[in-house]
Amino acid sequence: MNDLQLNPDGSLRHFLSIEGLKPALLEQIIETAASLEQVAKRAVKKVPVLRGKTVMNLFFEPSTRTRTTFEIAAQRLSADVINLDVQTSSTTKGESLLDTLKTLEAMHADMFVIRHHESGAATFFARHAAPGVSVLNAGDGWHAHPTQAMLDMFTIWKHKPRFDRLKVAIVGDILHSRVARSQIHALNLLGAMEVRLIAPQTLLPEQPESLGVHVYHNMEEGLRDCDVVIMLRLQKERMQGAHLPGGDEYFRCYGLTEARLQHARPDCIVMHPGPMNRGVEIASSVADGPQSVILEQVSNGLAVRMAIMAMVLGGQHEVRP
Amino acid sequence: MNDLQLNPDGSLRHFLSIEGLKPALLEQIIETAASLEQVAKRAVKKVPVLRGKTVMNLFFEPSTRTRTTFEIAAQRLSADVINLDVQTSSTTKGESLLDTLKTLEAMHADMFVIRHHESGAATFFARHAAPGVSVLNAGDGWHAHPTQAMLDMFTIWKHKPRFDRLKVAIVGDILHSRVARSQIHALNLLGAMEVRLIAPQTLLPEQPESLGVHVYHNMEEGLRDCDVVIMLRLQKERMQGAHLPGGDEYFRCYGLTEARLQHARPDCIVMHPGPMNRGVEIASSVADGPQSVILEQVSNGLAVRMAIMAMVLGGQHEVRP
Amino acid sequence: MNDLQLNPDGSLRHFLSIEGLKPALLEQIIETAASLEQVAKRAVKKVPVLRGKTVMNLFFEPSTRTRTTFEIAAQRLSADVINLDVQTSSTTKGESLLDTLKTLEAMHADMFVIRHHESGAATFFARHAAPGVSVLNAGDGWHAHPTQAMLDMFTIWKHKPRFDRLKVAIVGDILHSRVARSQIHALNLLGAMEVRLIAPQTLLPEQPESLGVHVYHNMEEGLRDCDVVIMLRLQKERMQGAHLPGGDEYFRCYGLTEARLQHARPDCIVMHPGPMNRGVEIASSVADGPQSVILEQVSNGLAVRMAIMAMVLGGQHEVRP
Repeated sequence: MNDLQLNPDGSLRHFLSIEGLKPALLEQIIETAASLEQVAKRAVKKVPVLRGKTVMNLFFEPSTRTRTTFEIAAQRLSADVINLDVQTSSTTKGESLLDTLKTLEAMHADMFVIRHHESGAATFFARHAAPGVSVLNAGDGWHAHPTQAMLDMFTIWKHKPRFDRLKVAIVGDILHSRVARSQIHALNLLGAMEVRLIAPQTLLPEQPESLGVHVYHNMEEGLRDCDVVIMLRLQKERMQGAHLPGGDEYFRCYGLTEARLQHARPDCIVMHPGPMNRGVEIASSVADGPQSVILEQVSNGLAVRMAIMAMVLGGQHEVRP
Repeated sequence: MNDLQLNPDGSLRHFLSIEGLKPALLEQIIETAASLEQVAKRAVKKVPVLRGKTVMNLFFEPSTRTRTTFEIAAQRLSADVINLDVQTSSTTKGESLLDTLKTLEAMHADMFVIRHHESGAATFFARHAAPGVSVLNAGDGWHAHPTQAMLDMFTIWKHKPRFDRLKVAIVGDILHSRVARSQIHALNLLGAMEVRLIAPQTLLPEQPESLGVHVYHNMEEGLRDCDVVIMLRLQKERMQGAHLPGGDEYFRCYGLTEARLQHARPDCIVMHPGPMNRGVEIASSVADGPQSVILEQVSNGLAVRMAIMAMVLGGQHEVRP
Repeated sequence: MNDLQLNPDGSLRHFLSIEGLKPALLEQIIETAASLEQVAKRAVKKVPVLRGKTVMNLFFEPSTRTRTTFEIAAQRLSADVINLDVQTSSTTKGESLLDTLKTLEAMHADMFVIRHHESGAATFFARHAAPGVSVLNAGDGWHAHPTQAMLDMFTIWKHKPRFDRLKVAIVGDILHSRVARSQIHALNLLGAMEVRLIAPQTLLPEQPESLGVHVYHNMEEGLRDCDVVIMLRLQKERMQGAHLPGGDEYFRCYGLTEARLQHARPDCIVMHPGPMNRGVEIASSVADGPQSVILEQVSNGLAVRMAIMAMVLGGQHEVRP
């Protein structure tokens, strides 16, 4: 994976997974995002970093929110954007994923942003991509969602820049969450003091400790003295299966309430990748409360995606806004 | 409403409803549209008024026609445009309208163009919008469709600039028409001599006279000496309900034919917001005849939407093309 | 048709059909494409030929691949592009095709790219288009797909510039193929030495010889000494009808295999408009083999569509990249 993501000089070629990257590269993403964030404050919110480049959004799973942030990020960098509605495309005519990739590449795409329900889809694309073409993983199966993890790291860094002092709790459906998987890798790489998972046994992967985390089944205990708490979205379809009781019952055990948040440090920040199920995994009073940085995460997502796009295509040295 | 739409200096902040606006502001929109209309005649049909701004089209009801004119208007002003397909977005995952608004705002949207099946949706957005973010109502329930009304006023003004001398008839399904509601307010604000509604009792709101109009149930009488006749689209789904007999019967009573148009003034212009049901509310010979300005309305819609976008975001003084 | 496609000075006004065009015009398209192809090799892959122009993609049949190449071609020429999702537009509200055209024209569209399931739809549009508005046929019924034919001619020309020395075989479902129809006209106009059709009787039009071709029912005979072989896509829905046996049986008789390709000239190139049914009309080893130029066709499609767009709107003299 490492080899595939990096150019021979160690710079970023694709962005597929946090796993295998060096801490310095994650820090570079954070610093580049901090720099590009300034663009949003200008009257004309554009830089010409990717002018004349074509970015193709290939979403095999629908996600207006994530696709839109990638689209805006590309527009801000002056790229041309093509949104491919994959539901109605040739893949439904029986064309293979590889034929689709090669066909789009032949249209001189410079970058693919790909979301796919199968783990490894983005890596497959990257393995077969032509020289000069970059692939960004916007979520593949249960595997990884590395731009989400990096926007979360950027958000944490802006509030609490010393990762080595942080206790971070991730709460909810870890088992099915590509977001959680990428966050755990990123937090460990950036040297977080402690990463905790809080979840019922049925929503944890096997042998979670092998990921370098501590496991809790109780919110009050798991939140104690935390600096950051990251709530995960509970997929409604899971609640109807064997994994879980109903939403009310889940909220009673694992919902983040004001009372529970008291167990964390007073300056603990509350995060959520969105969209939220209010009253299921998080109380509205917490979601909208003073410790919530949930909307900041969205803005930070723009800056981080601009940073990663600029790094893979523009080269680090050309990124100054 | 007035407070919400205007900045403290009286300039336009949002555009939600004709109701409550001052005549001078409506005249300013008309004048700005007249100025921006010149852009369409250039070889390069663009002005940089909104360069680097992000306009988001949020259509909770599908409308290719209206969405497209807003999209082209924004392109001509050099804005970046994001079309959000709301049918597939997080709102279907149970996210509230307010969460959707706040999330999109966090992506640094500068303007929302919103169409929604519920009356008051645009006002709700405007009430919660962050400073610097503008909301344009592209139709909310039965309430208002103010940009349509303003393009109609602009169209009338180009042919008959003295509103105080005009008799204007609005014909058809007034009850369910947000277009008619906005037109009536605009015509009264601009001082039209007389506004008439021509419709069967079942397609009129209660106490229509309270709107400052005269009511007719007979086309020949209602059209007599009119300078402008505005036909409304008959929603097919209404015809199947209790409100109305079939399309043929409707056309026999309330369809605009050449013979009926003879009762109006010889220079009376014929308008329709489109798309037309030919042979239901209007005869093809009238729709395509010399008095029809129906296609001009479409072009005027571009100029008026550019004007309103420029006024809310660019500030009046920066709008010179 | 000729009159409709050309301006009085013989330059291209619309692009509807190969039929009726002069060879010199086809050669001009090829030369312009060769020139514009260089744009794709620049760091900033854009030229301002269509800056400020609005190109509208009207696809009444879904086709992500073709729509995307037109969209990218327009972006590269700096045009503004509007994609109209015709499934959800006013045409489904009962508006006629002519009303749709006139409405979109009133939005100051400069060019329509239209795909429609009815033969003659693009010509209908062109016949009613306002002065200054151009129509490109992106496929109409079984009639024509002229930009596909021209990208195929451009592809052949790059490998084998002397058409008068070429034997070209077109293989597969000729009967239902607008692509084949346009290719046959183009090859004959450019003076190809011989055009062959290879197909079962059930997939040939009546009196195919009237098209100026030789007919074969046997692959080995038809491919003998060919310089170019063009495979057509087999529509799956045809295989289920009376026209044809199953995919395996078809492949056994008319599939292009390495063994069969041996009957053609050693430097014979293999083409396919895509998307391919591997193992039905073409073996994977051929599709991905050294004689295949199938992906080049996609890239050439961009250059040819840029060329045609520039010629109809920009005028030939302004096209220099």
